[in-house]
Amino acid sequence: MDYASATPIDLSVLQKMNKILKENYANASSLHDLGRESKKILDQSRKDVADILGARADEIIFTSGATESNNLAILGMLENMSRTVLDTKMSKTVFDMKIPHIVTTNIEHPSVLEVYKYLEKTGKAQVTYVGVEKNGIVDPQKIKKAIRGNTVLVSVMYANNEIGTIQPIKEIAKEIRHFKKTRDLVKFSRVLGLGPDQLKNFLSLSFPFFHTDATQAINYLPINVEKLGVDLMSFNAGKIYGPKGVGALYVKRNTPVDALQLGGGQEFGIRSGTENLAGIVGLTEALKLTEKIKEKEIKRLSQLHRYFIEKLSNSIEGLKVNGDIENRLPNNINITIPKIPSDLLVIELSVKGIFVSEKSACQSGDRAGSHVLNAINNPKLCKRNKENSSIRFSLGRQTKKEDIDCVITTLTQILKKLKKWYN
Amino acid sequence: MDYASATPIDLSVLQKMNKILKENYANASSLHDLGRESKKILDQSRKDVADILGARADEIIFTSGATESNNLAILGMLENMSRTVLDTKMSKTVFDMKIPHIVTTNIEHPSVLEVYKYLEKTGKAQVTYVGVEKNGIVDPQKIKKAIRGNTVLVSVMYANNEIGTIQPIKEIAKEIRHFKKTRDLVKFSRVLGLGPDQLKNFLSLSFPFFHTDATQAINYLPINVEKLGVDLMSFNAGKIYGPKGVGALYVKRNTPVDALQLGGGQEFGIRSGTENLAGIVGLTEALKLTEKIKEKEIKRLSQLHRYFIEKLSNSIEGLKVNGDIENRLPNNINITIPKIPSDLLVIELSVKGIFVSEKSACQSGDRAGSHVLNAINNPKLCKRNKENSSIRFSLGRQTKKEDIDCVITTLTQILKKLKKWYN
Repeated sequence: MDYASATPIDLSVLQKMNKILKENYANASSLHDLGRESKKILDQSRKDVADILGARADEIIFTSGATESNNLAILGMLENMSRTVLDTKMSKTVFDMKIPHIVTTNIEHPSVLEVYKYLEKTGKAQVTYVGVEKNGIVDPQKIKKAIRGNTVLVSVMYANNEIGTIQPIKEIAKEIRHFKKTRDLVKFSRVLGLGPDQLKNFLSLSFPFFHTDATQAINYLPINVEKLGVDLMSFNAGKIYGPKGVGALYVKRNTPVDALQLGGGQEFGIRSGTENLAGIVGLTEALKLTEKIKEKEIKRLSQLHRYFIEKLSNSIEGLKVNGDIENRLPNNINITIPKIPSDLLVIELSVKGIFVSEKSACQSGDRAGSHVLNAINNPKLCKRNKENSSIRFSLGRQTKKEDIDCVITTLTQILKKLKKWYN
Repeated sequence: MDYASATPIDLSVLQKMNKILKENYANASSLHDLGRESKKILDQSRKDVADILGARADEIIFTSGATESNNLAILGMLENMSRTVLDTKMSKTVFDMKIPHIVTTNIEHPSVLEVYKYLEKTGKAQVTYVGVEKNGIVDPQKIKKAIRGNTVLVSVMYANNEIGTIQPIKEIAKEIRHFKKTRDLVKFSRVLGLGPDQLKNFLSLSFPFFHTDATQAINYLPINVEKLGVDLMSFNAGKIYGPKGVGALYVKRNTPVDALQLGGGQEFGIRSGTENLAGIVGLTEALKLTEKIKEKEIKRLSQLHRYFIEKLSNSIEGLKVNGDIENRLPNNINITIPKIPSDLLVIELSVKGIFVSEKSACQSGDRAGSHVLNAINNPKLCKRNKENSSIRFSLGRQTKKEDIDCVITTLTQILKKLKKWYN
């Protein structure tokens, strides 16, 4: 019940990785036949991934995971901007005065939010966090209103990792396109303190660019980048029944992203380091497979999802489902059970062999409250209040109806016991 | 003959990785039993790696490879310094005036050198590149002389990837310690433009820190960090018969390194991202194994090495061995054959099933000359001259005497043919 934290590797994917690990260990940068064979497999993987996303091969950058992809998208763009300023010999002072601005939401993953905290703290960017509605979904109009003349990036996650709500990526892309078309370029050049010619050099006509963290979305949502209208899209293999430690970033042509990790110049110079060929093949095979069974899995899990929620509502008094009930991933059930501490529930369930998550697994280490739950609840009610703790059940390929029945039975028993103490 | 570019994975290492991939896929940050099991394996791996290096578990940071480790060591330290300046409310202007200084050599790996180029270009650091001697080894006295009051980092690779020369890491560490002990703190505080109290806050008493890229050294050289006297040491699994896409950075306690990749706060907050547990176990097992057979392999390869050089010298007229003949890795033979273009030789050998490298594999993509060969040769003679091209044979666990005989025979035949055209 914790597939959103990690997925077991698909055995056919593992088999293909093992073949690479055993036979194609040569460095893809080597000139000799073994190296060229590795390079060929690398190129084919890149093409396969691009095909699935409706992208071009040179728009796919392989990374070490979604965290790196998110960091590269955001910090890489700011790195490019600051270098562009240096290259065009424009005064750094002018640029620093007009600090770049980023628009995002208040329910992004830590690998996005922590980057913003860093940028704000160091004065490298201004960030507007658009609050999501009570249903955990952001209003595209509010994103649009937050865009300013110096907004270089809009970044909105495709589906939330904690509550599974799906963000209106297409609609946001439409608003951004509309902003670009209709903005007052003369006024804009004044805002940035640049002349019209400098403006042109300064990528002005194309920003804000649009990034989405699609890590949780890949298994269940359409991922054609052209149709979505995104310039940057992050994801990894570890959440789609592939290996951990490998991810990708889609970077649309002419989207300014500079390398953060420097060296041998691999991945078109945007991400140096000997390629993790087995991992890349694992990512590619996992992506192919998830795409192949996507429609069937959505149908199957949607049914299980409805069944699960119905059963839960019938058996638990005062149960609250967090996040929109319709626009959510078919594998995510996030609930709040009044008065019962969620960390205790995780442990009690674990004893019975049921593995769930409370808040985001990535944050389970520290005991800070969930920024996602804070975003969708009344903060006055929620702060340090048990009402704000939540359990996330996330289903996956191996989940069957019997599993859900078992969870319901066990959960009901545990709650019966716990309610004696927490009442 | 190209083990320095990539090593085949050891099958016992692969077996252990497969066990993790199949059974321990849970996110190590999850609270439940499966997550805790992953965390336990992660902790044990960290402890095992630390034990082998003579370090403490909290000094080991797992990364995506040696390139990331090198980037993290250097950029992470500068990141920390610039944050320290902000945190202590010292004027950024004062700090910018006294730009941090780094001492290195002119034969480092691109994943170090490219970082310096970037730092110099953006004005974030000054870098002194100490030239190695004609034998490809740096003089510790020259490193010492290059250290200034504002030197924050000395970074010298342990063994060179192209010519295999071993750098005197212990001796350099000794010089750095001596510098720290005897430096004039009053004068130093004036150099930095700080009062004595500010100085203390500013890590002044401990820098310069000492980093070494040990990627090529791990298989054949002593790697006890205490005995070496280093504060930071980079390496990866892909060069020690483990998987690609995973590496480590040893960070001695109290060595200031800040995260470059932000997010969930894994790896003590220095390197965020879901842990690549199978890769980490692969790295650990590979390190254990290489340590176990190190002494035996050194002996075996040293003999093969002597045999190879002797045979080469006897069969090729005008042959030059690049780099010191004694202080080099026992698996590295780097030679220059007069007048024969090395890229052509790589291809001719490859046709015959012999895979070698010319220059560093990481740079084979672009055709720029080797900075290492330029460093040890007379630049006037070498520029765009075939005398400067080189072939690297690198031996490994599967190399036998028969292989060397086969290489010699084949190489002699190819040279006979090529000499008709290049004379």
